Amino acid sequence: MQVDYKQLKQFVSSVFESIGCPEQDADLAAHVLVSADARGIDSHGVARLAGYVRLYDNGRLNPKPQIQILHESPSTALVDGDRGLGLVVAPKAMEIATEKAAIAGTGWVAVQNSNHFGIAGYHAMKAVEKDMIGWAMTHAAPLVTPTFSREKLLGTNPIAVGIPANEEPAFLADFASTAVAYGKLEILQRKGLDTPSGWVQDKDGNPCNDAFAIKNGGALLPLGGDREHGSHKGYALGAIVDILSGVLSGANFGPWVPPFATAGFMQAGETVGNGTGHFLGAMRIDAFRPAEAFKDDMDKWIKRFRAADAVEGQKVIIPGDPERELEKIRLHEGIPLLDPVVADLKGLASRFSLDFNIA
Amino acid sequence: MQVDYKQLKQFVSSVFESIGCPEQDADLAAHVLVSADARGIDSHGVARLAGYVRLYDNGRLNPKPQIQILHESPSTALVDGDRGLGLVVAPKAMEIATEKAAIAGTGWVAVQNSNHFGIAGYHAMKAVEKDMIGWAMTHAAPLVTPTFSREKLLGTNPIAVGIPANEEPAFLADFASTAVAYGKLEILQRKGLDTPSGWVQDKDGNPCNDAFAIKNGGALLPLGGDREHGSHKGYALGAIVDILSGVLSGANFGPWVPPFATAGFMQAGETVGNGTGHFLGAMRIDAFRPAEAFKDDMDKWIKRFRAADAVEGQKVIIPGDPERELEKIRLHEGIPLLDPVVADLKGLASRFSLDFNIA
Repeated sequence: MQVDYKQLKQFVSSVFESIGCPEQDADLAAHVLVSADARGIDSHGVARLAGYVRLYDNGRLNPKPQIQILHESPSTALVDGDRGLGLVVAPKAMEIATEKAAIAGTGWVAVQNSNHFGIAGYHAMKAVEKDMIGWAMTHAAPLVTPTFSREKLLGTNPIAVGIPANEEPAFLADFASTAVAYGKLEILQRKGLDTPSGWVQDKDGNPCNDAFAIKNGGALLPLGGDREHGSHKGYALGAIVDILSGVLSGANFGPWVPPFATAGFMQAGETVGNGTGHFLGAMRIDAFRPAEAFKDDMDKWIKRFRAADAVEGQKVIIPGDPERELEKIRLHEGIPLLDPVVADLKGLASRFSLDFNIA
Repeated sequence: MQVDYKQLKQFVSSVFESIGCPEQDADLAAHVLVSADARGIDSHGVARLAGYVRLYDNGRLNPKPQIQILHESPSTALVDGDRGLGLVVAPKAMEIATEKAAIAGTGWVAVQNSNHFGIAGYHAMKAVEKDMIGWAMTHAAPLVTPTFSREKLLGTNPIAVGIPANEEPAFLADFASTAVAYGKLEILQRKGLDTPSGWVQDKDGNPCNDAFAIKNGGALLPLGGDREHGSHKGYALGAIVDILSGVLSGANFGPWVPPFATAGFMQAGETVGNGTGHFLGAMRIDAFRPAEAFKDDMDKWIKRFRAADAVEGQKVIIPGDPERELEKIRLHEGIPLLDPVVADLKGLASRFSLDFNIA
């Protein structure tokens, strides 16, 4: 099913309003969430809307959070998200980061007591709009094993860095610190196919090709796959994201990060901090060198890489290109939704007596 | 040959003095360089000393640099290294970063017009000593292909992040953004062995196992190896390091980064900025939350990961553990040097009429 972007966003906003979010927060949350669908990161878009509602149903989500600065310095802040939607808390935190950067040159905000914040790239781009380099990280519940571990101790822990250019569109890297996203396993599961080597391991830590590895006690592997191919680097990267998002913010960390709303999501055991955390940053370009000169050099960087002599039949891509190109198409032509996602949305429409008038 | 750490450091300092470095700079440079040997990162230690001297011989190295701040804000600075040793310029830049962080909460310094700075981890640890999170990045001459490229456009571009703990030793991640370091190819070359798959490609961009791939027109692969295993993430990481070290600093970038002193190292073509660049950062822990509470949580993080249920016969390692453990041994028992490195050092001793009295 192909649906209109604006209608979809309006519907999502109505759902957030239905669980008690103020209109402005609901609109913002809908904008962040649906931007994932527009950019083709379908796993992080409206497919998760029912999950956010389950968070609310289970008392983990405060629809009217009092987002507060707990501590600050000229270039830093610690923010309490008051169990709000990460989709609302993170934009507020990034606003604080860019305000700090406007005065102090950079701004860095650690967030505790939040929930899933959608796609990291959305938040990084809010700084780019202001001629700043934007950083966004968040951690997640453990699906990933450190090198040589059988235990899952890290989430897919994404990192996004957005960098402005002049004539060229911005550079936007936004990637999980794993070999592949969990969503790729789900695709193979539906097709009944095995995974390539280097994506997952089994419950004993042996390399395997089982698309259901996680359900069978196995794990996703860090970027690099195995030790011989640098998995200790992917592990280190995921660890850095976890420590900045979790330890520096006073949120939970490592194996204690609460899962995003799944059926059995309530924390049974110990918690070591407050909710889920994020880490957001903004670096004002002209706190280093004149922004125009920098952006001209970024144009040169981007053009040179895009023009690289490529492997036959391929081209060299600038981080952010594919998502931006897809966004142009989807804003115009509509957003494809899988049947189970449509069913989820219709269920929410029915529950909250909303018209599902999108097509 | 096994040599005494202090004697080796003293010898290296004498060599730097011999090319005109002031005594204090020579001592600092020697300390940074030999710390690589002590930690087992032999490729970045005294094996490169003759290279630094060649840089001087070819007029690319200023032994008495006037290191200057060109522009600054409360939490940032742009530094001109005046063609000095990166081994001296980077510690000075990190000092500026930590001074900024002491007041503004964080400090971020982009450096242009520098040279190779040794191991990134050394610089990150200078912030850790002050209860700050330390960041250090630098770019290098192109040996690495972006995903789908046949052209080498990025260096091995390392990133280091050091994070203080309390009872536990600090977390220190220090890694190149490639699947493997170039030094691992050299080891295989000496042994006449092939590389595992996923390390290098040939001149047409095909996967290969040739330890001499680079000499034959091929390239090192980004962390991830190929597209299916996330090489676009390793490419993005290397790109971020290059842009922060090169574009943000006004140094060269991408394929224009000047090579470290090799036989044919002079830039033949265009330059797009000033020398080689670095990017250094310091984040004061208590600009976010009380340092003691943070460091206690880091202890908990480290203990939990170290205690992870491991794959049979292995253990889960905290980033920085192996290098720190080796350093303890080597400071006590001496540093092993390969014959060609000893020959290089003896050559320098002879040239500068220095006693090579280390054993």
